[in-house]
Amino acid sequence: MPYVLYYSPGAASMAVHWMLIELGVAFEAHLVDIDSGKQREPDYLRLNPSGRVPTLVVDGVPRHESAALLMLLAERHPEAGFAPAPGSAERAEWLETMIFLANTVLPAMRDWFYADVDGEAAGADAVRALADRRLAQAWDRLDAQLADKPGYLIGGQLGTVDFMALMLMRWTRNQPRPATGWPHLAGYIHRLRALPSFIELNAREGLTEWLNPND
Amino acid sequence: MPYVLYYSPGAASMAVHWMLIELGVAFEAHLVDIDSGKQREPDYLRLNPSGRVPTLVVDGVPRHESAALLMLLAERHPEAGFAPAPGSAERAEWLETMIFLANTVLPAMRDWFYADVDGEAAGADAVRALADRRLAQAWDRLDAQLADKPGYLIGGQLGTVDFMALMLMRWTRNQPRPATGWPHLAGYIHRLRALPSFIELNAREGLTEWLNPND
Ligand SMILES: N[C@@H](CCC(=O)N[C@@H](CS)C(=O)NCC(=O)O)C(=O)O
Ligand SMILES: N[C@@H](CCC(=O)N[C@@H](CS)C(=O)NCC(=O)O)C(=O)O
Repeated sequence: MPYVLYYSPGAASMAVHWMLIELGVAFEAHLVDIDSGKQREPDYLRLNPSGRVPTLVVDGVPRHESAALLMLLAERHPEAGFAPAPGSAERAEWLETMIFLANTVLPAMRDWFYADVDGEAAGADAVRALADRRLAQAWDRLDAQLADKPGYLIGGQLGTVDFMALMLMRWTRNQPRPATGWPHLAGYIHRLRALPSFIELNAREGLTEWLNPND
Repeated sequence: MPYVLYYSPGAASMAVHWMLIELGVAFEAHLVDIDSGKQREPDYLRLNPSGRVPTLVVDGVPRHESAALLMLLAERHPEAGFAPAPGSAERAEWLETMIFLANTVLPAMRDWFYADVDGEAAGADAVRALADRRLAQAWDRLDAQLADKPGYLIGGQLGTVDFMALMLMRWTRNQPRPATGWPHLAGYIHRLRALPSFIELNAREGLTEWLNPND
């Protein structure tokens, strides 16, 4: 089996899981339920010393970091076109947007959801307040990007940036400012959630929230 | 001129500036002094709406995000070998480490240095305390990585990961826990600071702190 994914439903593994389904490649998926602390068991820590999901075993070696895994998969399966080709006009924009999602949106989400696990409980409100502000700025920026070019975020077609962005937007569903409150994000979310691969992904992870209503 | 760099001395532009010098390509460098607020002037905001450095103009288009710029330059100049080639054994490790530096170390640095600019002054101490903790964890991890394989971080040769890592380590020099306090990081820092390109970089940016003593 070329790929083995360790995932927890709805977690940072979701973008990678989605991409594997879209690629149509053979892979095994193993559940690591983070709500019951499975990511801290010795067997899993051998695969991922930081005790996080996802881990993707590639050619027998465990690899980490959702954004890096998406980029690696895009490179290993260029025929799928989930990243603009090296040298193409959209390549720099793709790299910049992947890095922006990874270094701005994702860390603010970590702050929001893990402020009192990663840091002192007494400081958690301050950490979450800053995260909330940074997330709103990020959604403003992506909303503006989609206003100019509705559809997908880069190059007019589905790709790694969309797998990552939709996963991150999903995490806002119970936050004070859900991404669906931004007009162009709302349209983007509705369109991407209609993809058969996204519906399949939710079914495989056992997720029932945040799907389009049957219309 | 294929490349035009907008930089501020010692800022997040430093890794890109270093790589351009190492590549030996033609580029123009424009100073945007962030200490005097030049990043918020209208002319610069047209190049970089978020008012940050670096900006690198590539083929006439302004591009952003230090980690993305390093990856883009590596791809445009494969002959320099500053990133493992796609498909090579070290490629996944390179991607993972670039993303780790970008989404863990860099945001913690932003928190440390900009807690009261980005957020509320009242919460700044809590934000900085969490940043300090996360930075120490990141240095532990990179120190362990260098203990196994001293020299460079990936593939036994200088590359984008080192340009980024050394820049980030330099920012610890006045923090409570400078990276030089970790034994393998100390050796790594000493070795990289001896490179002629790093000495040249510091001279061009007018920096005199955090160089190796003349020995
Ligand atoms: N930077 C990592 C973040 C992974 C992460 O924080 N995953 C969370 C779930 S969304 C996790 O594993 N949490 C369990 C824990 O921290 O104990 C990535 O993008 O893969
Ligand atoms: N994620 C950006 C971060 C850039 C950044 O925060 N740069 C700082 C200097 S280290 C800056 O421009 N600060 C000026 C300001 O925020 O006003 C990158 O890696 O390029």
